[in-house]
Amino acid sequence: MVRVLGVDPGLTRCGVGVVDVEATRRTTLVHVSVIRTDPASPLEQRVLAIAEGVGLLIDEHRPDVVALERVFAQHNVRTVMGTAQASGVVLQAAAARGLAVALHTPSEVKAAVTGHGGADKRQVTAMVQRILRLDAPPTPADAADALALAICHAWRRDGVSTPVAAGGTPLTPAQRAWRAAEKSAGAPRLDG
Amino acid sequence: MVRVLGVDPGLTRCGVGVVDVEATRRTTLVHVSVIRTDPASPLEQRVLAIAEGVGLLIDEHRPDVVALERVFAQHNVRTVMGTAQASGVVLQAAAARGLAVALHTPSEVKAAVTGHGGADKRQVTAMVQRILRLDAPPTPADAADALALAICHAWRRDGVSTPVAAGGTPLTPAQRAWRAAEKSAGAPRLDG
Repeated sequence: MVRVLGVDPGLTRCGVGVVDVEATRRTTLVHVSVIRTDPASPLEQRVLAIAEGVGLLIDEHRPDVVALERVFAQHNVRTVMGTAQASGVVLQAAAARGLAVALHTPSEVKAAVTGHGGADKRQVTAMVQRILRLDAPPTPADAADALALAICHAWRRDGVSTPVAAGGTPLTPAQRAWRAAEKSAGAPRLDG
Repeated sequence: MVRVLGVDPGLTRCGVGVVDVEATRRTTLVHVSVIRTDPASPLEQRVLAIAEGVGLLIDEHRPDVVALERVFAQHNVRTVMGTAQASGVVLQAAAARGLAVALHTPSEVKAAVTGHGGADKRQVTAMVQRILRLDAPPTPADAADALALAICHAWRRDGVSTPVAAGGTPLTPAQRAWRAAEKSAGAPRLDG
């Protein structure tokens, strides 16, 4: 079994979801919530609140790995820098606790849970509800993406044929050498 | 006197500089260096190294405030997300230690130290050397921007006529109310 924390990063609303995934792919909801920060607060206080919220979740639920949405500069320009800053402190909160972080794109997540990368939000939420055998859509509604990220990561691990870096990109020769050294030192990564 | 830590955020090279600025504007170099991370390392390890490096610097030099370069989505798209993630953990490292963070744009920094916002890197470095009364340009060379940021912040504080948020933008009514409440509670911010 693997326990995955999925994080849909954002400054105002940061979705977090924890699932347990068995070898059979049977997937169970452990936790879902949204960490909120006040847009009127200073930026440094907002990122600190996100870092502390994610840190508390990791300490409470002890996931094996963190799955984080990969942010692109091409996304909504008005919010993308805040989203990237939030993702920075999520990466740090995980690494400070010895956890690896895997990045997945929104289309990878949609494809993993619905079968096609162009699925809309409603379809993703419906599939997350089905996969987790819930009586109703997960709430808060915008936390469904965090659960989908966690499910995506656990399910994709099965099918990964080539080693990928934590960033989700194919490993460079230097990264492969590093990863091999890490493995021979007895510390295999969960995303490799 | 105010002690300012300036940070020029970056994933591979994060410039950091500390200066002391007297009421007369006489400015003295306290520290300058670059925190480097290995591009072949996992992203989460890189942001953790930056967070820890900045945290150690704050603990050692105890600045009164942190000045951070404002990152725009329009910048170099290839590196901007990493730069924003690095800035996220710098914000967090400061806030976790009770420090406010002020954001300044590159053109604000250039204008503050050279007199015009379109100055080139050589001109900024030359002025930083003069301002700090150094015998040679500060090294490593790419740390000059971090020193310029710190100088910019300390010098601009004198001339600020309208209250600005930590983000450097004019305060919204909600932010003004928040700031006023904070001041009446006896905790004035250094950037207000």
